[in-house]
Amino acid sequence: MILSIFLILNSLLSSSSYAAVQNFCVAETSSEGPSGFNCKKPASVTVKDFVFSGLAAPPNFSNVAKASFTPAFVDQLPGLNGLGISIARFDLEVGGFFPMHSHPEATEVFVVTSGSVTAGFISAANTVYSENLKAGDVFVIPPGLLHFVINKGDSPVSGYVSFNSPKPAIQLLGSSLFGNGLPTDLLTKTTFLDADQIKKLKGVFGGTD
Amino acid sequence: MILSIFLILNSLLSSSSYAAVQNFCVAETSSEGPSGFNCKKPASVTVKDFVFSGLAAPPNFSNVAKASFTPAFVDQLPGLNGLGISIARFDLEVGGFFPMHSHPEATEVFVVTSGSVTAGFISAANTVYSENLKAGDVFVIPPGLLHFVINKGDSPVSGYVSFNSPKPAIQLLGSSLFGNGLPTDLLTKTTFLDADQIKKLKGVFGGTD
Amino acid sequence: MILSIFLILNSLLSSSSYAAVQNFCVAETSSEGPSGFNCKKPASVTVKDFVFSGLAAPPNFSNVAKASFTPAFVDQLPGLNGLGISIARFDLEVGGFFPMHSHPEATEVFVVTSGSVTAGFISAANTVYSENLKAGDVFVIPPGLLHFVINKGDSPVSGYVSFNSPKPAIQLLGSSLFGNGLPTDLLTKTTFLDADQIKKLKGVFGGTD
Amino acid sequence: MILSIFLILNSLLSSSSYAAVQNFCVAETSSEGPSGFNCKKPASVTVKDFVFSGLAAPPNFSNVAKASFTPAFVDQLPGLNGLGISIARFDLEVGGFFPMHSHPEATEVFVVTSGSVTAGFISAANTVYSENLKAGDVFVIPPGLLHFVINKGDSPVSGYVSFNSPKPAIQLLGSSLFGNGLPTDLLTKTTFLDADQIKKLKGVFGGTD
Amino acid sequence: MILSIFLILNSLLSSSSYAAVQNFCVAETSSEGPSGFNCKKPASVTVKDFVFSGLAAPPNFSNVAKASFTPAFVDQLPGLNGLGISIARFDLEVGGFFPMHSHPEATEVFVVTSGSVTAGFISAANTVYSENLKAGDVFVIPPGLLHFVINKGDSPVSGYVSFNSPKPAIQLLGSSLFGNGLPTDLLTKTTFLDADQIKKLKGVFGGTD
Amino acid sequence: MILSIFLILNSLLSSSSYAAVQNFCVAETSSEGPSGFNCKKPASVTVKDFVFSGLAAPPNFSNVAKASFTPAFVDQLPGLNGLGISIARFDLEVGGFFPMHSHPEATEVFVVTSGSVTAGFISAANTVYSENLKAGDVFVIPPGLLHFVINKGDSPVSGYVSFNSPKPAIQLLGSSLFGNGLPTDLLTKTTFLDADQIKKLKGVFGGTD
Repeated sequence: MILSIFLILNSLLSSSSYAAVQNFCVAETSSEGPSGFNCKKPASVTVKDFVFSGLAAPPNFSNVAKASFTPAFVDQLPGLNGLGISIARFDLEVGGFFPMHSHPEATEVFVVTSGSVTAGFISAANTVYSENLKAGDVFVIPPGLLHFVINKGDSPVSGYVSFNSPKPAIQLLGSSLFGNGLPTDLLTKTTFLDADQIKKLKGVFGGTD
Repeated sequence: MILSIFLILNSLLSSSSYAAVQNFCVAETSSEGPSGFNCKKPASVTVKDFVFSGLAAPPNFSNVAKASFTPAFVDQLPGLNGLGISIARFDLEVGGFFPMHSHPEATEVFVVTSGSVTAGFISAANTVYSENLKAGDVFVIPPGLLHFVINKGDSPVSGYVSFNSPKPAIQLLGSSLFGNGLPTDLLTKTTFLDADQIKKLKGVFGGTD
Repeated sequence: MILSIFLILNSLLSSSSYAAVQNFCVAETSSEGPSGFNCKKPASVTVKDFVFSGLAAPPNFSNVAKASFTPAFVDQLPGLNGLGISIARFDLEVGGFFPMHSHPEATEVFVVTSGSVTAGFISAANTVYSENLKAGDVFVIPPGLLHFVINKGDSPVSGYVSFNSPKPAIQLLGSSLFGNGLPTDLLTKTTFLDADQIKKLKGVFGGTD
Repeated sequence: MILSIFLILNSLLSSSSYAAVQNFCVAETSSEGPSGFNCKKPASVTVKDFVFSGLAAPPNFSNVAKASFTPAFVDQLPGLNGLGISIARFDLEVGGFFPMHSHPEATEVFVVTSGSVTAGFISAANTVYSENLKAGDVFVIPPGLLHFVINKGDSPVSGYVSFNSPKPAIQLLGSSLFGNGLPTDLLTKTTFLDADQIKKLKGVFGGTD
Repeated sequence: MILSIFLILNSLLSSSSYAAVQNFCVAETSSEGPSGFNCKKPASVTVKDFVFSGLAAPPNFSNVAKASFTPAFVDQLPGLNGLGISIARFDLEVGGFFPMHSHPEATEVFVVTSGSVTAGFISAANTVYSENLKAGDVFVIPPGLLHFVINKGDSPVSGYVSFNSPKPAIQLLGSSLFGNGLPTDLLTKTTFLDADQIKKLKGVFGGTD
Repeated sequence: MILSIFLILNSLLSSSSYAAVQNFCVAETSSEGPSGFNCKKPASVTVKDFVFSGLAAPPNFSNVAKASFTPAFVDQLPGLNGLGISIARFDLEVGGFFPMHSHPEATEVFVVTSGSVTAGFISAANTVYSENLKAGDVFVIPPGLLHFVINKGDSPVSGYVSFNSPKPAIQLLGSSLFGNGLPTDLLTKTTFLDADQIKKLKGVFGGTD
């Protein structure tokens, strides 16, 4: 009977090319199109392409924001390619924060696993949706909107965050405005900020004038 | 100058209907279409629509699988509507497991936060991609494929799992086959299982014949 | 022979419900879902649903930015519903500008039809892509990224802009940060701006503290 | 043990709203949006929503094209709603044909099950891709392109055709041009046809001038 | 006048690269991304890329399920690439059947052309939607759900099946569980089957332990 | 403090591969898939990839339709790749027109900037939606439907048109039917046109018989 069952497979999935359908497209990062990276040949795919072991590393708080972010995006986890999702770990020291930023096309959902934060986003109608969140709380940030997370408590914060993209972009407001060569007069005009303020922050973010 | 700035808004966003664009569609669950629930009127949306506070509840292991699953899907968190993502907490007692199941159209990515598990999925080419995962490891399960998670360790397991859908379906293999009225002879033929085995499991899963 | 041709239609498109397929879904704005507004009944659709006559109105520069923006979005032009596109006219007086802003999920492409501007966007890698554009030049702004347009010339500027959404959201940086009740200390922390600067701009944009 | 298994379900799928996830959205045709019809309440869905019994009816050739087309689109088969596919049966008497037409956004694939046809489509580069097809042959027509099928053989033709839409639109060239009130002078100009030809075909297709 | 008409084309479609737009992307199978295979150069595309002549071959019933399945997927029919649809022929001898399986992301719709079958799918809420189908009946199977087809009649069955994917994956339940090296104790736990049953079926499906 | 801010970036965006996320995929036209061209390496992208300077060129009316069309599609403007939009300029001399044509999968929206036109499209239900449009009027054409634009006024017409595709196909009715080798008898049958008319237009459009 063994042979005859194999014959099911022979007749149902007989063409050799069809046999390769595995329902995934592991990233082969040398070539990329609008929908993601090209696919590795199935024969060279292993379970390691679907595993990333980096989220237990202790957070690195050696920055002014006392914030740590460890992504498991498609660059770390090639099995995510084309699959519309990713995950990351975040940590905030006491007083730490994620400064104002947006993810241009990606929705974000995060859960706080320890500590408590104030998180909020600003809608395109300029309404602030902000809340104090404790361990076990989940928060949603619609795509592309400015948002922030602050640890106002007296203990460190940890959590996990997912995006509906294998490779979400992050636009940090400060670096975007002050970490490059945008001329001060142009920034003065387009942001309504004073030139002194801009120059000071260009100093901080390493921008040139 | 205040007035003149307000005039920017007046000219840029003058039509009253346009002013309502907030870039989200919070679920109003009385009416649903293929792309999700209808949207609540913006005026009645509050930050509570973007918060769910249920993931800190202690796991409920009072079942044979010693498994606990607490979703933050669109039914719990209406701000997820139309946004292509959701999150959930999972827990496994010592010896606990998630039995063989699939999510018909959703990709799953999960992180283990404590304990260690054996997880695996089976590709459409019948290849098993299985790995032992410890705290901090992330695992990806391509959409629609059978998969399982087992706690083989000597301590409980916790973790978080995301799906690229606000309302992922779950097809549990055992309940699908044995928890309804599929006739035993039909099951015998289409699953290759013995009638005795089927009848036994119909007893377990509450199926009728 | 007329009758027999009509019989083609009778046999090819015989079911009465099928006869309603017109390949559009004109917005009936009382009900909305994630993919757009509900469809008007075909019988009440007229050519007026596909026409908007507002883009020849003279620009309204009575605001501090000396900028004018007249949208033909789905709220003005219900035939755009579900069709993934919209158009608008923009004008800038001498010295006018569109302040720093983003469209959370929409790509923008615009053409300058008279005058000349400096336009630019900032990538998620903080690179500035900026160019001086004259009449006849087209510029693309990828979705969700901060961008600006300034009339540095000595004559007014006009142009047309399209978005790949029938209802693109607009997040104006200044109004988002300073036109609502975000507390000054929170803004100080998350934007790196000085409290004095923030308070000054809250005054300008009408924000509260 | 029965009870404990039920407790799996209780803990895994405990919220009553989640229990409704069935992974389909059967059409409730009174309300429609850009992505399809609203969903019937799951409790009122039956297997009949997934079955259509009309494709065995004998073809109706009483039209000038000696052609018959019986759709199983979402209007006939509400379970197709939102699922991106449909099917239909087609038949051509000896000498029968499907006149030049297009499906504005849908791909078509068809198989000939008896008889033989000449089928072809015209690319946007004006290249004709045409072939003589016999029983068992499959032909693909990319979305939106003009195409035709003719029975040049001496026996009737039957086959099945699928579209990647639950409700594909059909634009018949003859009816579009000559079956309505498009003025003859406008048609003369925009189609390069002679006025006499147009008037003759307006007579045939029932158009007015 | 011929020349002047050609000048329409010259001015309307003048750039040489634009002239290549043909509205299809025929598979060049050496390179693949998440949205499908790379496109053949238009110059080498012929009508043969849109034709597959394999569905008239007599069914091959030499297997235990007495089932035959002949796909016209993108591997057989490269013109389907990127177009979201495919078709196949199926046949069942008297007593033949398609065992329990799923298509992880694809909707299936099929028509019975001769004979009669019992077909059914199981929803994610464990409800069975099953029906006896005769020639001319169409049945829909939502994406990713377990389903089966059995010929319970006294004559062979034929039909055609379409999927809303050019390359739908097929996960056969038996092969997935018993046709690889999944350990028996793991299967016992995750499927609730007895070890004896598993070992027996591993023998049948060629699995190892 | 400068260093410490840089450390934010180090920890937030530390992996070198992640640093490349810029939220665009500029076309590298040597390789193409169903979702668009492959992406240029970010290091070689410049602002020139987002600019096209061709829409101010004077219209070229040296054709029988006295029509001019200058596209800014992905072939002219590689930054549009994968972004779902494009723009073009159109001009019509007195008496000029765009003959009957369709865009197989793309929605079109256009604005008249000078002069006045009669424009219309024909729905799949054969209804004509036609309107006289003056400067400042916007008109929408749903995807894939036959449409036309005629300058019936006594001054030239200019305008801008956008499509929800970076590379919309254009199927010109006359060229499709009469500009290739479709046999006259086949055209007679499938278009209901007289053979004399067809032969005359084959002469005009350069078709062969």
